[in-house]
Amino acid sequence: MFCATRSSALRRRVFLNVTKPRNISNAPRKRVILSGIQPTGVPHLGNYFGALSNWVKLQREASADDELLFTIVGWHALTLPQDPKVLATARTDMLAFLLAIGLSPQKSIIFHQDHNPCHTELAWILNCLTPFGKLKRMTTWKARLADSRNANDESEVDESLLNAGLFTYPILQAADILVYRATHVPVGDDQTQHLELSRDIAQIFNQTFKNRLFPLPQQLNTPTKRILSLKDPSSKMSKSAPDTQSRILLTDTPAQIRAKIRGAVTDSIQGITYDPVARPGTANLLAILAACTNEDVTAVAERYRDKRHGDLKAGVVDAVEGVVRGPREEFERIRKEEGYLALVATEGAEKARALAEVTMRDVRKLVGLA
Amino acid sequence: MFCATRSSALRRRVFLNVTKPRNISNAPRKRVILSGIQPTGVPHLGNYFGALSNWVKLQREASADDELLFTIVGWHALTLPQDPKVLATARTDMLAFLLAIGLSPQKSIIFHQDHNPCHTELAWILNCLTPFGKLKRMTTWKARLADSRNANDESEVDESLLNAGLFTYPILQAADILVYRATHVPVGDDQTQHLELSRDIAQIFNQTFKNRLFPLPQQLNTPTKRILSLKDPSSKMSKSAPDTQSRILLTDTPAQIRAKIRGAVTDSIQGITYDPVARPGTANLLAILAACTNEDVTAVAERYRDKRHGDLKAGVVDAVEGVVRGPREEFERIRKEEGYLALVATEGAEKARALAEVTMRDVRKLVGLA
Repeated sequence: MFCATRSSALRRRVFLNVTKPRNISNAPRKRVILSGIQPTGVPHLGNYFGALSNWVKLQREASADDELLFTIVGWHALTLPQDPKVLATARTDMLAFLLAIGLSPQKSIIFHQDHNPCHTELAWILNCLTPFGKLKRMTTWKARLADSRNANDESEVDESLLNAGLFTYPILQAADILVYRATHVPVGDDQTQHLELSRDIAQIFNQTFKNRLFPLPQQLNTPTKRILSLKDPSSKMSKSAPDTQSRILLTDTPAQIRAKIRGAVTDSIQGITYDPVARPGTANLLAILAACTNEDVTAVAERYRDKRHGDLKAGVVDAVEGVVRGPREEFERIRKEEGYLALVATEGAEKARALAEVTMRDVRKLVGLA
Repeated sequence: MFCATRSSALRRRVFLNVTKPRNISNAPRKRVILSGIQPTGVPHLGNYFGALSNWVKLQREASADDELLFTIVGWHALTLPQDPKVLATARTDMLAFLLAIGLSPQKSIIFHQDHNPCHTELAWILNCLTPFGKLKRMTTWKARLADSRNANDESEVDESLLNAGLFTYPILQAADILVYRATHVPVGDDQTQHLELSRDIAQIFNQTFKNRLFPLPQQLNTPTKRILSLKDPSSKMSKSAPDTQSRILLTDTPAQIRAKIRGAVTDSIQGITYDPVARPGTANLLAILAACTNEDVTAVAERYRDKRHGDLKAGVVDAVEGVVRGPREEFERIRKEEGYLALVATEGAEKARALAEVTMRDVRKLVGLA
């Protein structure tokens, strides 16, 4: 239960919108959009349509005034046990994927969260302003508690063995947002509560120090396309599902894509219709196809109405390959350029730190540590 | 209750001994001693004899191989409400006092904790390794809980309104210690539990990442001289006691010292004897005198045996003035040299960061964030 929440809470993305420091009260605000993703390794189709493709869209549609930041949140990854070698590789993989899908260091600030110590500095300061009770009410913490003992009732579970980071990471998330003075944060519904906490903390800070330093970040809704498991269409496509055939990775070859789609669970009903309740497997394939071709799913269903599952699957294979090919080839090329990736990370971190430092200079002065 | 614990826990000092990174297992360890003090403003005689004079002694007796670090822990101050302007002034005051009592930037690294972001970075990483239950067992947290509702029983109190920083600051303390790879930490008894937590966290880190990066910091006992209130010798001399006549500040003029000592509570028993139970006021004056002249308290009592309280008080006035004069005059001189103070802070921070960065490079690599 918690894992699902966590994976959507942290493994997915936190979109943030950030304003520039000085012109808070008057002038029309420059948007600064920041989004975070955990370094989980190779993204699958669910990650791509759930978040990453939105980032590229956001970059494409941004105005010249907008500031975009995309961050790989390594510090959040540490709240769950990690193999350090796997994590180190996954961090660079994720950076390479952000570039491979089309994010551009010329248009966006792309950086590792853990390259900007302003995040943890601000997180500590916000710790000193955040009521303990607000953290206890986070559903992610409650779910984690329930998970720790397979308990259904909060009173049954023992929190003592969970690490403190699992309890306080919503404050680090608030710092991720506020250190760039976010105004809008495009997140999924599972992140609504965390974003509310960020707003609460921003408000507490502003009231405590009689200032309007932090705008209250608002949720920005982005169209999310829910991609389900190819083997169990009652659950989301997931990195952690044991059956590797249940997900398509952005590194999958055409042959792998073909094999996985061919093996996808459907039904024995003749003809193709979009019916997520009665025909979840078929509906999922239609949804994948529609996402890949950027069509309406009912239009796709209409086109395949009189065809067979084999035809639909062939169409899905082609469409998925059409979407995956570019990122896959670009990833293969770019992942080898370690020097270039390091340069992108360094330059991104420098830009992110420069923005965050402007905020932190004000923060330190306001709290009395300057 | 909590305040007493806090003031001794944080307002006093955390001594840390630090080894150099590489030669952990074999070569004889270079000692690196670090101690922290909260920016509480002008120290009183209790602070001086309880901690600050020990720092000077430590610096005087250190071998050429020892590394000494003295830090003003501004981030810890934020766990309690602060007036930002007062805090900002108190930070610089404290720096000036560290110099005024004889700490030397040539011999020791003197710096503001909040000038070294490695502390909060490491604190976050340690948050992800520290069981929630260990923090809940901290007596400072329990005392704070009890204090929040004047309750005697833990079950009666509501923790929800306390800030999260009060809960997690022992982890920041552990980071303060471990980021310099402490081996010995001279602290008072009220800090024993926090130091045990630092050891536990060091051990968890070493075991988790199969390394011996962090030595387990040991407690180093230093002679502490307990100075009591001049007005209520049943409690310690305290910055927060309402009666300002109950404490002697290091900035007090000879006239102020004389007035405060003359007004000190004693008793109406003839002659002078050292009897802390039956004659606490008189015993406290004898203890102050002995601390000032660095004598044994019973020897001082013997010298005053046939004299009157007036004679004792006159002796105490002279002795206290003898101790306070130097720091007071030096503070008055040095506090005006804002440029010099800023330079000391900057250079100290650079040296501290350089040491901490060596540790953090290893930490980041071990956890997989490099």
